[in-house]
Amino acid sequence: MRWSSFYQTASRAFHQSPSWSKVLVVCTVSGGGLVAYADASGGDKCPKKKVVVVGTGWAGTSFVKNLKNPLFDVEVVSPRNYFAFTPLLPSVTIGTVESRSIVEPIRKIIRKKNVNMQFTQAECFKIDAKNKKVYCRSTQDSKNGKQEYSVDYDYLVLAMGARSNTFNTPGVEEYTHFLKEVEDAQRIRRKVIELFEKASLPCVPEEEKKKLLHFVVVGGGPTGVEFAAELHDHVHQDLYKLYPSAKDYVKITLLEAGDHILNMFDKRITEFAEAKFQRDGIDVKLGSMVVKVAENEICTKERGTGKVVSLPYGMVVWSTGIGPRPEVVQFMKDIGQGSRRAISTDEWLRVEGFGDIYALGDCATVNQRRVMEDIAVIFSKADKNNIGKLDLDHFQEVVGDIIERYPQVDIYLKKKQMSNILALMKNSQDNAALVDIETFKSCLSEVDSQMKNLPATAQVAAQQGEYLADCFNRMEKCEKYPEGPLRFRGTGRHRFRPFRYKHFGQFAPLGGEQAAAQLPGDWVSIGHSTQWLWYSVYASKQVSWRTRYLVVADWGRRVIFGRDSSGI
Amino acid sequence: MRWSSFYQTASRAFHQSPSWSKVLVVCTVSGGGLVAYADASGGDKCPKKKVVVVGTGWAGTSFVKNLKNPLFDVEVVSPRNYFAFTPLLPSVTIGTVESRSIVEPIRKIIRKKNVNMQFTQAECFKIDAKNKKVYCRSTQDSKNGKQEYSVDYDYLVLAMGARSNTFNTPGVEEYTHFLKEVEDAQRIRRKVIELFEKASLPCVPEEEKKKLLHFVVVGGGPTGVEFAAELHDHVHQDLYKLYPSAKDYVKITLLEAGDHILNMFDKRITEFAEAKFQRDGIDVKLGSMVVKVAENEICTKERGTGKVVSLPYGMVVWSTGIGPRPEVVQFMKDIGQGSRRAISTDEWLRVEGFGDIYALGDCATVNQRRVMEDIAVIFSKADKNNIGKLDLDHFQEVVGDIIERYPQVDIYLKKKQMSNILALMKNSQDNAALVDIETFKSCLSEVDSQMKNLPATAQVAAQQGEYLADCFNRMEKCEKYPEGPLRFRGTGRHRFRPFRYKHFGQFAPLGGEQAAAQLPGDWVSIGHSTQWLWYSVYASKQVSWRTRYLVVADWGRRVIFGRDSSGI
Repeated sequence: MRWSSFYQTASRAFHQSPSWSKVLVVCTVSGGGLVAYADASGGDKCPKKKVVVVGTGWAGTSFVKNLKNPLFDVEVVSPRNYFAFTPLLPSVTIGTVESRSIVEPIRKIIRKKNVNMQFTQAECFKIDAKNKKVYCRSTQDSKNGKQEYSVDYDYLVLAMGARSNTFNTPGVEEYTHFLKEVEDAQRIRRKVIELFEKASLPCVPEEEKKKLLHFVVVGGGPTGVEFAAELHDHVHQDLYKLYPSAKDYVKITLLEAGDHILNMFDKRITEFAEAKFQRDGIDVKLGSMVVKVAENEICTKERGTGKVVSLPYGMVVWSTGIGPRPEVVQFMKDIGQGSRRAISTDEWLRVEGFGDIYALGDCATVNQRRVMEDIAVIFSKADKNNIGKLDLDHFQEVVGDIIERYPQVDIYLKKKQMSNILALMKNSQDNAALVDIETFKSCLSEVDSQMKNLPATAQVAAQQGEYLADCFNRMEKCEKYPEGPLRFRGTGRHRFRPFRYKHFGQFAPLGGEQAAAQLPGDWVSIGHSTQWLWYSVYASKQVSWRTRYLVVADWGRRVIFGRDSSGI
Repeated sequence: MRWSSFYQTASRAFHQSPSWSKVLVVCTVSGGGLVAYADASGGDKCPKKKVVVVGTGWAGTSFVKNLKNPLFDVEVVSPRNYFAFTPLLPSVTIGTVESRSIVEPIRKIIRKKNVNMQFTQAECFKIDAKNKKVYCRSTQDSKNGKQEYSVDYDYLVLAMGARSNTFNTPGVEEYTHFLKEVEDAQRIRRKVIELFEKASLPCVPEEEKKKLLHFVVVGGGPTGVEFAAELHDHVHQDLYKLYPSAKDYVKITLLEAGDHILNMFDKRITEFAEAKFQRDGIDVKLGSMVVKVAENEICTKERGTGKVVSLPYGMVVWSTGIGPRPEVVQFMKDIGQGSRRAISTDEWLRVEGFGDIYALGDCATVNQRRVMEDIAVIFSKADKNNIGKLDLDHFQEVVGDIIERYPQVDIYLKKKQMSNILALMKNSQDNAALVDIETFKSCLSEVDSQMKNLPATAQVAAQQGEYLADCFNRMEKCEKYPEGPLRFRGTGRHRFRPFRYKHFGQFAPLGGEQAAAQLPGDWVSIGHSTQWLWYSVYASKQVSWRTRYLVVADWGRRVIFGRDSSGI
C-alpha cells in the first residue's frame, strides 16, 4: 500500500511539475536500498499545454470537474473562489436554504484531480488573443490599487457568465435587487426582514406601511416566479406569526411585459401558475413594462392603454434576463463581434475565428451553421462521381454526417415524421435515383427554420463544460483518429463530434409545495408530486456530498423549525 | 380541544389587550349558541404597568424569557432583532459553527409568552428618567433621516451591553476587527479567506505574502485565546489543504499586555495554554502593549525593555475588554455617574437613585454596599434593647439578614473556616455575652476586602435577567409579604432578596479538541474530555431547540466535511 502510493505520488510529481523534471530520487526503505534516477524531461515528449479557465459558474466548474487529461496544466481564474448552485438562489433569498449550503469552494473541487490545477481569485479584464494572454486584476484593494498581472495560455476557456440585463431602464441599477449571485440573495433576505421591522415601528403611518411591505418582482420567468412564490410562502408561513400587525399591508406584485408568465413553458403550466398566484393573492400584472424605477416608486407602461402607472414599493427584485458582462463586451469588440449579445462560437464551442479560445455558458451562444449556406458544398461532397447530380445510393453514405453537422435536419425530419433524409428526397422526386442541386435545395429549404438558440440555463452550461472537458480528455486520440462529421468545406473529418444539447426538462416551483415541470417530449407535470421530483433532482445534481447533505438538511430544518428571520 | 383552545384564546385576549376590554363576543358553534358578554375593564383592577426592555443580549433576553407575570405590558427595544449566543462567536469566525445557528429571533421568543410583549427594532439614544421616557431611533434610513420616537415606561430595564474597549489606542477603530457581534464574526471569516486568496496571487512577492498571512490577536482573555486557537485549527485542518503554497507564510501572534494569557484562570490552565500555543507555533508575546495600529503595521511597546516594535500584519483582531456604549455614557452623565465605567446599581439591580430603572448585564455593575459604611446602623438594629452593647443572643436574630445583605461576610467566614458570624464575635471577645461597637467594628473590619466586581460574562448577565424576571413575577406577592433582608437603614424588610451571583465555572477552548475549565471550588479540568464537557454545556445552554439542533449539526458537519472556505 505504502509502496504503491509512493510510486503514484512520485510518478504524478514527474508528470505534473516541470520543475521536478531533473530530480534525483534517492531513498532507502527497510529491507534494501533503492536508487532511482530519472531525467523526466527526456520522457516528457510533449510539453504540457496551459489551459486557462475564466469563471467558476456552471460551465467553468463542469469543465474543470470533468477534465481528466494530465497532459494539461490548468489555471482557473474567477472573482469568486466558489461554485454556487444558482437554481437554489430563490430559496436562499428567504432562508429555505442557507447560502453556505449551495456553495462549494473551487479549490476543494480541483484538489481532488489528477490534473495539475491552480486557482487564483481575480477578475479577467482583458483578453489579448493575438499574444495569447489573459490580463487579470485582484478582486481586493492593495496599497497601489488592485494588483494586475497576466497569464499566458495555450487554450482559453471563457465561462464568465452574464450579468442581469436592465435594458437601460433608468433607476434599475440604483434601486432594485438583482438575483444572480449569492450576495444578491443574502441582500434580499436582509432587506425583507428590514422592511418588516421598519413597518412595525410605532411611528410609521398606514400609507407608509403599505409602501414598505409592497414587494415588486419584475420579470415573469422561472426565477422571478419562483422568488415571488417563495416570498409568499415565507410571509404566510413564518413572518405573519412574528409580525401579526403586518398582515393587512403585505402585497406581492409580479410585473411581466409579455402576455403570460412562464411563457417559455407549456400553456398548461402558465395557466396553472397564473391561477395559483391569483388564489394566493400575488398580483400578476401582464403587459406591464417597467419604464423607470425611482427611489420610492416604480413606473410601468400598460401595453393595452399605454398608460403609465406608478407604484410605491418597499423592494424591487429585477429578474428580466441577462446581458453580457463589460469585459465580454470589450472582448467581442476586439474580435469584431461588437454587435452581438454574447460571444459567438461554432458548434465545437470555439470562438469564431479562434481555434484556441472556447466560450461556453451564458457568455456565449452557439452559432449553428445553416444548411442553406453550405448547400453547394454539401451537394458536391455527396456527388462523389462529380456528375452534377446526386446518386441517392451514394448520398446515403454522407447522410449521417449531414445530420450530425446540422442538427436542424434531424429535428425537421422528426417533425415531419420521416424516417430519414432519403425519404425527404424520394418524397419530392417521384423515386428518381438522381437528384439535381435545385431539387436538393428545395428539399432542404425549410430545414433551417428549426434552428433555435440554446436557452441560457445551468443545464446548457453544465453540458457544454462536460462536452468540452471530454474533447480535451480525448484530444490526442482524436487528433489521430478524428471522430467528428465530414468537413464539407474541407477535407477529412472534424476531430470531435459537435456539441449537442440534450434537454432533460425544466422546473418551475410555484410555492405551497407545488411545482411544475416540462419534460422532454412535451410532457407536463404539475403539483405536489412534481415538487418531490424537484427535491430529488436538485438534491442529486449537487456538486458535492457536502452541499447535498446541507441542502437536504436545510429542507428538513425548514419543515421542523421554519425559516429564520434574524436580520443578519 | 377546540373548545378549550377557544377559551384560552379568549381569556388571554381579555387579559392582555386593554383595547379588547369592552368586547362583546357572540359566536355560534354547531350544536348550540353561545353568547358571552364580558366587561373586562371591571375585572381589571390595576392597570397594567409598562416595562420597557432595552437590549436583546444575554441579560435582556433572559429577563424576557423568564418573565411570566401577565400584569405587565412589555416593550423590547433593540437594534438587533435577534438574540446571539455570543460564546460561540469565535467558532463562527472560521465556520466551525454557522452564524445563523447561534441566533434566535427575539420575536420568536416573545411570541410564545403569556405576557403581552412587543418588539421594535430601534436604538435607544436617550433616557429621560424624570419624565419616564425612552427616546428611540430606527436603525434604518428613511427619506428624512432616521425616524425617532419616544416610549413611556413604568419600569425600565437597561440591558444594552457594552462595546469593545480600544483604550483610545490610535488606529484601532479604523484597522482592527472586533469580535463582539455576529457581523464582526462574519467579517473576520470573509477577511481570513480573502487574505489567503490574495497571498495566492501569482504577482505577490514573498515579503508581502508573509505580511498578508500574519494574523495578530490582541488580548489574551478567553475570547482572544479561543479565536487564536480556532484560527490555528482552521488553518492547519482545512486551509493548508486548499492553499498548500501558504504553508510557509502563515503566522499567528497573540499579544497580551499582562504577564500571562488567561490570567483570570488558575495558574495550571495558564501554563497549559501557553505551552500548547508554543507547541502549536502560535507566537504568544507577553508584556506587549499595543500603542498604535496603522494600515499595515501594529506597534507594540515591550514592557521589559520599553522598546517599540512594529509588526506588519494582514489582519488584527482586537479583543481586550469592554467599555460603555455612547448612549450609556450619556445616561450616566445625566444621572451624575459620569465618572464611572458602567451604570452603578444596588444589589437589587436598581440604578442608584431610581427605583424604577434597572440595569443589568455588561452595561451595569452592582455596587455592593460595604459593611463598614453601615456598621453603626447594623449595630443599632442588632442592639434591640438599645443599651449600646450587643447581646449576642439577640444578635443571632439578625445574623441571617446581615449575611444576605452583605455577601462579603459569608465569603470572609468561609475563608476563615468559621461556622458563622457569632464565632467571629466570640473569637475576639473571650466569651463575653455583650459586644460594644468598637469590638463589633474591629471584628468586621476586614470583611469588605472580600468584595469583588462581577465579571462581564454571559453567565452573570443571564442570571441577572432571570433574577429580575423572578422579582417582576412575584412583585405583588412580595409587596405584601416582603422576603428580603431587614432594612438596616430603615424599617421593615426589603421586598426581594438581593441578587446573588452563582458561579458555575468558566471554559477556555484551546484548539485541537482540547479545552480548559475552571469549575467552582477551584477545580480545574484540562484536555480532550473537557472539550466534550464544553460541547455538552454549550449545547444545553442554547436558547431554543432550533439553535441547539443547528449548533450540534454544525459540529457534526465540521467533523465530516471540514469547514467551508468559500468567500461569501
